[in-house]
Amino acid sequence: MKLASPHTLKEIAALINCEFEGDENHSITGLNEIHMVVEGDIVFVDHPKYYDKALHSKATTVLINKKVECPKGKALLISDDPFRDYNKLVRHFYPLTYSLKQISDSAKVGVGSVIMPGVYLGNNVSIGNNCVIHPNVVIYDDCVLGDNVIIHSNTVIGADAFYYKKRADKFDKMISCGRVVIEDDVEIGAMCTIDKGVSGDTRIGAGTKIDNHVQIGHDTQVGKMCLMASQVGVAGVVKIEDGVTLWGQAGIRSDVTLGKGAVLLAQAGLGEDIAAGKTYFGSPAGEARGKMKEVAALKMLPELINKINTSNA
Amino acid sequence: MKLASPHTLKEIAALINCEFEGDENHSITGLNEIHMVVEGDIVFVDHPKYYDKALHSKATTVLINKKVECPKGKALLISDDPFRDYNKLVRHFYPLTYSLKQISDSAKVGVGSVIMPGVYLGNNVSIGNNCVIHPNVVIYDDCVLGDNVIIHSNTVIGADAFYYKKRADKFDKMISCGRVVIEDDVEIGAMCTIDKGVSGDTRIGAGTKIDNHVQIGHDTQVGKMCLMASQVGVAGVVKIEDGVTLWGQAGIRSDVTLGKGAVLLAQAGLGEDIAAGKTYFGSPAGEARGKMKEVAALKMLPELINKINTSNA
Amino acid sequence: MKLASPHTLKEIAALINCEFEGDENHSITGLNEIHMVVEGDIVFVDHPKYYDKALHSKATTVLINKKVECPKGKALLISDDPFRDYNKLVRHFYPLTYSLKQISDSAKVGVGSVIMPGVYLGNNVSIGNNCVIHPNVVIYDDCVLGDNVIIHSNTVIGADAFYYKKRADKFDKMISCGRVVIEDDVEIGAMCTIDKGVSGDTRIGAGTKIDNHVQIGHDTQVGKMCLMASQVGVAGVVKIEDGVTLWGQAGIRSDVTLGKGAVLLAQAGLGEDIAAGKTYFGSPAGEARGKMKEVAALKMLPELINKINTSNA
Repeated sequence: MKLASPHTLKEIAALINCEFEGDENHSITGLNEIHMVVEGDIVFVDHPKYYDKALHSKATTVLINKKVECPKGKALLISDDPFRDYNKLVRHFYPLTYSLKQISDSAKVGVGSVIMPGVYLGNNVSIGNNCVIHPNVVIYDDCVLGDNVIIHSNTVIGADAFYYKKRADKFDKMISCGRVVIEDDVEIGAMCTIDKGVSGDTRIGAGTKIDNHVQIGHDTQVGKMCLMASQVGVAGVVKIEDGVTLWGQAGIRSDVTLGKGAVLLAQAGLGEDIAAGKTYFGSPAGEARGKMKEVAALKMLPELINKINTSNA
Repeated sequence: MKLASPHTLKEIAALINCEFEGDENHSITGLNEIHMVVEGDIVFVDHPKYYDKALHSKATTVLINKKVECPKGKALLISDDPFRDYNKLVRHFYPLTYSLKQISDSAKVGVGSVIMPGVYLGNNVSIGNNCVIHPNVVIYDDCVLGDNVIIHSNTVIGADAFYYKKRADKFDKMISCGRVVIEDDVEIGAMCTIDKGVSGDTRIGAGTKIDNHVQIGHDTQVGKMCLMASQVGVAGVVKIEDGVTLWGQAGIRSDVTLGKGAVLLAQAGLGEDIAAGKTYFGSPAGEARGKMKEVAALKMLPELINKINTSNA
Repeated sequence: MKLASPHTLKEIAALINCEFEGDENHSITGLNEIHMVVEGDIVFVDHPKYYDKALHSKATTVLINKKVECPKGKALLISDDPFRDYNKLVRHFYPLTYSLKQISDSAKVGVGSVIMPGVYLGNNVSIGNNCVIHPNVVIYDDCVLGDNVIIHSNTVIGADAFYYKKRADKFDKMISCGRVVIEDDVEIGAMCTIDKGVSGDTRIGAGTKIDNHVQIGHDTQVGKMCLMASQVGVAGVVKIEDGVTLWGQAGIRSDVTLGKGAVLLAQAGLGEDIAAGKTYFGSPAGEARGKMKEVAALKMLPELINKINTSNA
């Protein structure tokens, strides 16, 4: 997320009371989780395994738990607990507020849009023109809908990311300050959940159609004109390109990419990237033609084992 | 769906500004999707692959994109875009209206029924006697519940069918004008979705019991005294006969039939018909006894491959 | 469930108009389903297969459909329909009431807790301090939440158990009189369902974090600091010990135990116990290392069958 205005390295270090490395006037313009960083951002890292990734990401300030060599043109914030201090900064710049009105005074609704009874619209929610938001839909703060969007009953847009850091005796929650952005002409069924980004946007591309009971995790990017059947589950930080089809009850692990026009068949469990135009099936999912051969071969296996046992007898 | 009163072929052709074949006084009494057609109906077809099915269905008027030979006693409406014109007719006869009251003035509730807070009842909803509708349930327009029906919180009855026509640059939505009919003594868990029929009824038979998070697609027919465990997903246009049991997380493809007393085990993915009394398992699902043999054989396979590799070495 | 005050065997027999065996002053202090019984309880049994289990359970009064030998220190209630009479007792001691106020007058909310619009809190619901209950959450009667609990939108806590007795022409519902107890520092995502216990408590242990669309059945016990990813389904009467992780879309059959720190991978279907620290995978699920070997072997199977067929030709 962008800050409302730039801050200096010195100012930020003072907020979390930590040492820093680099020019004290080094400019900080945003806060982001590693998958979403852009120039000007702070990123945090607290495990040596990920130091390199963070230090060489697009982020220009790294909140880190060890004094390491600072890459040229960047700055470090050195903290004994980067996760805690990152959360502290998020809360400082995005203070927690809950609108207790069913439709927040700061929510905006476009011309021709129908907001049905029982709908909750949080702070700064923006709804475009000619939308229909069916009864009891909940849209959390800051989410943005384009024009001609239809959302069926009881769907929840913008709940928090499922993202925790394990401590010895508890899970610490990563504070989500991102949004959900839903582009024009999207229809979302009843009982879906689309979680907000941790620090960026979860996005549903124009013209995409989503059936009931679908889950889409934080920071996931869904392209244009995709189809998702009922009970599909997409984890966080997934990239789904244009024209992808996901059949019923399929599941997708975090951090994978589905190329343009890819198809994931019903109940498939995807743990790897799919190239554009390919069809995958099975759990764990593989290219469908190969998987169908496995299904056929497996049918012959009991008989084959019988034969082998008999001929060895 | 039946029209409120019959119309002539000539009148209907004028509404969508298209040519026709057949007696101009030929009577039209309804509009239906191909799976649901009865005599007097218009059905639409726009792909040569399905011409025969449409022309020889029970529908007596066919809205089609080519001048073909008209079957005896029937009539044709010839349109460059039957899908668009079918939707135009649906909207003409069933104009879009949204009740913005939490309980529509035209909704009816029987004697002894309890409607809990936050429930939404759309236009013409009809609830029988001695029902309990738990908080925040949403029932869309025109749905009908019998007596002694219990619906747990946040369930959505009658959302639109997930049914689109793919165009070059968008998905066109098929307008749903059907209903959900829930017979006597049905209990439906929390967080379920039962979609309305495209042009007919989605039906849940008397005495059937459904657990939480279950999805039932448009135009699906569920028999009497069925059981569905949590997170079951049933696509559209499925026929489930009496006494069928579906275990947790099982999924069913559109347009299949489950015979009387059939059983689908947990997480099974059904893509074909099940005969009465049979038990199926696996994804893709097959008869359970055979599938269990496959599971057992697969357990032996790694060792078998080892042996073969060793003996070939 | 404990009765408000103890009753004698004679009093209870009069309520359901049945014979009894044992001291007429034998004390009855509670009513419980077989999985939850403690000393002083009535348990019911109506199938000879389960007589022994019921007679030798911790329950000290057995509502049974045959005059059998009464274990020492216990008592019998002899009924032609123990299921019906058990339900009659439940309704007598826990009469059906529905609060028609959005937040019942008997609901209690702790200091610093935020109850968002559209939330329903039933009779005797108790919410601790510093909780956040997001819009349109529904909490049924008698459920108890600790401190610092967060519940995201549209989640339903405390709906009835999915528990029926099959009769010739209907399913008879087992009346649930239990609760859901959610301990401190639990976070539950949007669109989850946690059913109440039939006669005891469904419990979510302190510090556990649950993602969206998760189902937890009646009387299930979840330990401390567990993680459940989206769309997990846990049946009734499951025991999940501390530190267990369930990945997305995994399902668990009723009445199994997952030992401390066990892991169930995505889409796994568990039908048996998992020992502490073990990782399971597959449907039906087995120890992950073995299952991964099966996956690898299955990939080789089509080629192997080709070879065998060729060499036999």
